[in-house]
Amino acid sequence: MRNGKGLIIGVDLGGTKMHAAAVDEAGKVLASERAKTLPEEGAEAVIGRIAGLIGNVAGALGASASDVQAICIGVPGGVNDAEGMVDKAPNLGWEKVPLASLLAAQLGGGARIFLDNDVRVAVLGEHAYGCGRGTQTMVGIFVGTGIGGGLVVNGRLHLGSRGAAGEFGHMVLDPNGPRCPCGKRGCAEALASRTSIERDVRKMIEKGHKSSVLKLMKKEGRPRLTSSVVARALEDGDKVMTKVFARAQHAVGLLVGNMVNAIDPEVVVIGGGLAERLGESMVAPIREVAYRHFLLQRDRDKVRIEATALKDSAAPLGAAFVARMRLTGAPAPSRHATAPSAND
Amino acid sequence: MRNGKGLIIGVDLGGTKMHAAAVDEAGKVLASERAKTLPEEGAEAVIGRIAGLIGNVAGALGASASDVQAICIGVPGGVNDAEGMVDKAPNLGWEKVPLASLLAAQLGGGARIFLDNDVRVAVLGEHAYGCGRGTQTMVGIFVGTGIGGGLVVNGRLHLGSRGAAGEFGHMVLDPNGPRCPCGKRGCAEALASRTSIERDVRKMIEKGHKSSVLKLMKKEGRPRLTSSVVARALEDGDKVMTKVFARAQHAVGLLVGNMVNAIDPEVVVIGGGLAERLGESMVAPIREVAYRHFLLQRDRDKVRIEATALKDSAAPLGAAFVARMRLTGAPAPSRHATAPSAND
Repeated sequence: MRNGKGLIIGVDLGGTKMHAAAVDEAGKVLASERAKTLPEEGAEAVIGRIAGLIGNVAGALGASASDVQAICIGVPGGVNDAEGMVDKAPNLGWEKVPLASLLAAQLGGGARIFLDNDVRVAVLGEHAYGCGRGTQTMVGIFVGTGIGGGLVVNGRLHLGSRGAAGEFGHMVLDPNGPRCPCGKRGCAEALASRTSIERDVRKMIEKGHKSSVLKLMKKEGRPRLTSSVVARALEDGDKVMTKVFARAQHAVGLLVGNMVNAIDPEVVVIGGGLAERLGESMVAPIREVAYRHFLLQRDRDKVRIEATALKDSAAPLGAAFVARMRLTGAPAPSRHATAPSAND
Repeated sequence: MRNGKGLIIGVDLGGTKMHAAAVDEAGKVLASERAKTLPEEGAEAVIGRIAGLIGNVAGALGASASDVQAICIGVPGGVNDAEGMVDKAPNLGWEKVPLASLLAAQLGGGARIFLDNDVRVAVLGEHAYGCGRGTQTMVGIFVGTGIGGGLVVNGRLHLGSRGAAGEFGHMVLDPNGPRCPCGKRGCAEALASRTSIERDVRKMIEKGHKSSVLKLMKKEGRPRLTSSVVARALEDGDKVMTKVFARAQHAVGLLVGNMVNAIDPEVVVIGGGLAERLGESMVAPIREVAYRHFLLQRDRDKVRIEATALKDSAAPLGAAFVARMRLTGAPAPSRHATAPSAND
């Protein structure tokens, strides 16, 4: 890595923003930069911005894009890493985009480019460098516009027989619950994602409950409820948000309790935008509900339930970790990555 | 194993019956015998019967109890294998029974005696010699008086950080569902165990629905609903049992769907008395519900959902497998086994 040679860069490509970081072997961020994704400008423009971000990160270390040895991009959707292809990324509006070759053409250097799913790389980041460091068994639950996750067993990401493990957001918690985008009723995602929180807040307001949430959203000028609006409304003591958010926390607590009864991990990490912003104040009630649901109450404190330690660096750190592993010959971790984005 | 030397015997110690089998390395049962447990006669009498069973199995192979090299007993409760102690086995009425030393005294030979939980050894049996043979990831769900289970990941039983993994019966499927013995509402066990089926059948009869189930139970002379009465009532087209059983199958299907979305195993094995007796006719509707709940529909047939292949030999075969592994130095699989019995 002298003179910037052999740089490893992890990229979190979200529907709203992108974030690239050069990371050393110990998980130290050497340089990083964020940019807006602006997917409405098309894939070429987005990929140009990724290339620019990578050039800037390398530049900050006195290097250039051609000095980069390997890049891994965490994509909000399904990827085929062997073909360097993004199969489908709804938040980007992408289908069958040959991201690796288009980016290579823009960069012009000889960097190896790997693709993976954004939630999975975030889980791997937390395991390699965050809350899960040194653990054998970790459950990662990422609450965003959806709910995604990942499972580490025996110190390694568990992919499952079809590469589809970790879809904790689509475990049914209440068969009579609200409809989920997947078509089922009462999935964790239908009860506790930011999308579900927004749905329930709007419903209560329509019913005549007073709330400042719509005003806060208007002020922010974003079409959908963001983590910062949730945080602001909770700070303000907005009654509707307080009630809706508590219900979402309860659902996540139930999900965590179920996962602990099934898997008995050392640590459960709650990530995604809400957990990044609210931290322990989001997780404390989740932990309380989860603990009540453990069948084995003995040593329940040994199962740590924590907010993401790496916050929005989990995905770029994890992506850099994947790039490093892949360079040393570890197999592609996710041929069939299908997890929806829950990060941005 | 010539002249019976080096025999390995697995024992399934249930609340109702016990079952011992001498098993060779390939999983072939060389000799086996069953007996009633009669726990009401006290631990000494039960342990005497276990010793007798082991002597008979050895005898059938022209050997004696002193020729037995190793025994593993699957116990319906929690064990401390290092101390040879049954911590608690409610179905036997046992607490702190030093099973290994008491059995060794009765046998008089030098056999190594290992203890494990009955559900776990049954899961290991199915993995080593049954439905799960050769798989890396397997979920075992045993429906009995309760619902227990076990999880194989990377080809090995996953115990979890506190040895408490596999409690699938205590994953909440409906927060408004009926009360579970564990205190929570709507656990899988509270919706689909044989105990829950009996509760729902009695409730419908009390409400005036016509059913022959109570008559069948009386004829059998057992205080609780058995798998054979369930099977008979279903064969007879008993409307109450048909309805209640379909609801239980739906709940198990939901549980399987949830586990597949989380773990994406190669195979899900449904075991326990009901599955042993009803086989595919029990599992077909479970599979249908589960498939509907998979988030990833692609290659869904690759996730096999099957009734136990080994039936009531799963536990003795698995116990023999554990004994063999332990002789070769594999670590104790379950220091904190806590799963309730779901086998008998």
